[in-house]
Amino acid sequence: MPGVKIAIIGAGSVAWSAKIIRDLCVTPELYGSRIVLVDIDRERLDLAYGFATRYASEVKADLKIEKTMDRRKALVDADFVVNMAMAMGHGYYEKMRMISEKYGYYRGINSVEWNMVSDYHTVWGYYQFKLVMSIVRDIEEACPDAWLIELANPVFEITTLVGRESKVKVIGLCHGHLGCKDIARVLGLNFEEAEFEAIGFNHTIWLTKFRYKGEDAYPLLDEWIEKNAEDYWRHWRREQKDPFDVQMSPAAVDMYKVYGLFPVGDTVRNGTWKYHWNLETKKKWFGPLGGPDSEIGWTIYLKGHIREIEKIKDALKKSLPLTSLYPPERSDEEVVPVINSIANNEESIRQVNVPNRGAIAGIPNDVTVEIPARVDGGGVHRITGKRLPERIMKYVIYPRMMRMEWALEAFLEGGRDLLFEWLITDPRTKSPQHVDEVINALLSIPENREMARHFN
Amino acid sequence: MPGVKIAIIGAGSVAWSAKIIRDLCVTPELYGSRIVLVDIDRERLDLAYGFATRYASEVKADLKIEKTMDRRKALVDADFVVNMAMAMGHGYYEKMRMISEKYGYYRGINSVEWNMVSDYHTVWGYYQFKLVMSIVRDIEEACPDAWLIELANPVFEITTLVGRESKVKVIGLCHGHLGCKDIARVLGLNFEEAEFEAIGFNHTIWLTKFRYKGEDAYPLLDEWIEKNAEDYWRHWRREQKDPFDVQMSPAAVDMYKVYGLFPVGDTVRNGTWKYHWNLETKKKWFGPLGGPDSEIGWTIYLKGHIREIEKIKDALKKSLPLTSLYPPERSDEEVVPVINSIANNEESIRQVNVPNRGAIAGIPNDVTVEIPARVDGGGVHRITGKRLPERIMKYVIYPRMMRMEWALEAFLEGGRDLLFEWLITDPRTKSPQHVDEVINALLSIPENREMARHFN
Repeated sequence: MPGVKIAIIGAGSVAWSAKIIRDLCVTPELYGSRIVLVDIDRERLDLAYGFATRYASEVKADLKIEKTMDRRKALVDADFVVNMAMAMGHGYYEKMRMISEKYGYYRGINSVEWNMVSDYHTVWGYYQFKLVMSIVRDIEEACPDAWLIELANPVFEITTLVGRESKVKVIGLCHGHLGCKDIARVLGLNFEEAEFEAIGFNHTIWLTKFRYKGEDAYPLLDEWIEKNAEDYWRHWRREQKDPFDVQMSPAAVDMYKVYGLFPVGDTVRNGTWKYHWNLETKKKWFGPLGGPDSEIGWTIYLKGHIREIEKIKDALKKSLPLTSLYPPERSDEEVVPVINSIANNEESIRQVNVPNRGAIAGIPNDVTVEIPARVDGGGVHRITGKRLPERIMKYVIYPRMMRMEWALEAFLEGGRDLLFEWLITDPRTKSPQHVDEVINALLSIPENREMARHFN
Repeated sequence: MPGVKIAIIGAGSVAWSAKIIRDLCVTPELYGSRIVLVDIDRERLDLAYGFATRYASEVKADLKIEKTMDRRKALVDADFVVNMAMAMGHGYYEKMRMISEKYGYYRGINSVEWNMVSDYHTVWGYYQFKLVMSIVRDIEEACPDAWLIELANPVFEITTLVGRESKVKVIGLCHGHLGCKDIARVLGLNFEEAEFEAIGFNHTIWLTKFRYKGEDAYPLLDEWIEKNAEDYWRHWRREQKDPFDVQMSPAAVDMYKVYGLFPVGDTVRNGTWKYHWNLETKKKWFGPLGGPDSEIGWTIYLKGHIREIEKIKDALKKSLPLTSLYPPERSDEEVVPVINSIANNEESIRQVNVPNRGAIAGIPNDVTVEIPARVDGGGVHRITGKRLPERIMKYVIYPRMMRMEWALEAFLEGGRDLLFEWLITDPRTKSPQHVDEVINALLSIPENREMARHFN
């Protein structure tokens, strides 16, 4: 097998790229491939490169690993382009969030309903959308047949945008659907004997199929909620360490009651202001850390990120074996299996984000959906005609879709009026003047000089 | 010509029904028809009947006019059912609005964005939807081939609901599109030489075509805005008598700038909280009366309504000629012309609200749109493939459609959670507890006992 060329954009995000690199290193089916790491930050690129070459040598992976700051060079003849780049970086979004909170927009202007998660920058995602579109334009020239594997958020907006504005083949991937494993674990089920299907939009997926040993398993969930949930939550409230440990939280159970299906993965982090009004509300629904999207939870997340990088740096410096940090076994991440299925025509079922084209009834064809699909050398093969209940369509899917449409229009067309439109419907807005003030404050920071012109 | 049978439901709303009756009386093409007036209020029904019989006799209209409180009897073999009934009446909605405002929901909970007009009861429209569906079930049995001409609001929600839940043929009508006449008048154009097309949803229609003497007339509008609008507004602010006189208001011009097409008729009354935050804001955008949907404007509207009824009562009592109140010439209302076109196969172009079925691109087929269409003995013939600009689709049409979907789901399925969902996204909401308080207050009034069970 000749191997493929894989460019990883934003590889300097080593807390993320390390996992992908490890997965590639322990996938012999892809041996012989070239991996090109790309970043605009030399130091972080060097770190990722150091990790990758050392890890490959530790596990004797037959991969050719390269690095470059020249994205266009990296893309030439690439078969796969993995994008995990976050334009402007976390610091920028922290600054935006700080200004927003100063004006009373708790946890950031980005956190509008149905789009609560703190690092999805939709209306404020100008730089992120712009970066993706510039990558896409490069792909069109340098490697028009490549698959763009989009990991960077907001996956829903970005993959829909790319699907509409370019012929580049795009697949969005996310590990949120693995929340199913938590469901199985907490209910005491053997995951191997359980069958899960969760569909919708990225971070807005709902458990449409849940079977155990061949039978409908929703009754097991109902029984757990009735008999065991309170005990579980009592313990969980005392012990919660990971702000992302919310799959079986009161919020998830409440959403199930309101919408009729159980929410999976990051879906639990979404939901209306009912769950997110302030820190106290977040704690009630997401545990003592307030979930990942509280000031407590997000700080833990960012610190964990930095600690992960420090650990890798330290291991490299002291020449400790990296396999002790990252055991040489494949993770549950979909990236490498998807690449393998396409590159080697090895059919598998994968959770992917692709333009709908009939997969879920009632959603336009050019809107990206998250669904399980058959992936092989021919690409993604949808199973069409899936359905979500009316309540989820009307109270979850449509509002989320509308926000996506707002975001893409704001990015593609610009104009300050559109920023105003978002905020005038925001329950934290106190007056039309209030909207103008916060827009002025945000657009006047130096980092936003370019964005201010777009939204002039 | 044998004539047709027309049942008018809610005919006791004599301020409205008088116009329709007059139009019928001055349309000889429909002579020989039976008109059955229906109301649950005997006194008001008698008044409408008194008006109708007297008016018909004054103008020597060959119409058989009847009255009944038995709706089912009125429907037997009807060819047309005109519905103008408002369940519970204005008093009920005033009471609901008063409670809502007490809890800080200025101008009523109904006045959510894109659905600002004070008497459209969507999420709170339980009784209105229920009434319409009971009429529809009666039609299915008593006169399944009849046309339901829906005048009662909310026309958008009701006609979509009926289109989905029944095979009854429904056409929604409204006079909002006549705002085009105001545009022509203010610009100093001869209406007969102007061509207008306004499409969208009821009360959300946008000027997609505007030509004068064969040429694009948008430049004339732009010129007026640039050169004459300020002067016009100065005068208008001093003189405004009619709160509905907002077609050429600063709000309309601002919407044109934000969304790209000029809004027509009641569309101007819609719009986000930008225009409606409080009375001061409303005055800025809609003139000194704050538009029809302010506490000033709505009071004028309700008083005018009562005055109209008193005038009719007085004229009947004193045996004054009704033609002095209602000159014997056909109004601009679409009702009678639509009936005439269908009954007598007289082709005409009418502004109708019918299920989309391809008329406007990007809107599902089972959602009602407002469009000009050809009407004849075969019914409504759509011209398909019309388009609205992306900005209007995304920032006006989708949000309004989403609200409609929320309203229909809330009506069809019930559940308190859905009321909560509306209010938690409302910018007037101060906390999740605030939502619970106002829902409790509204559901606990005696009139809402039945609705409270539905939303339990």
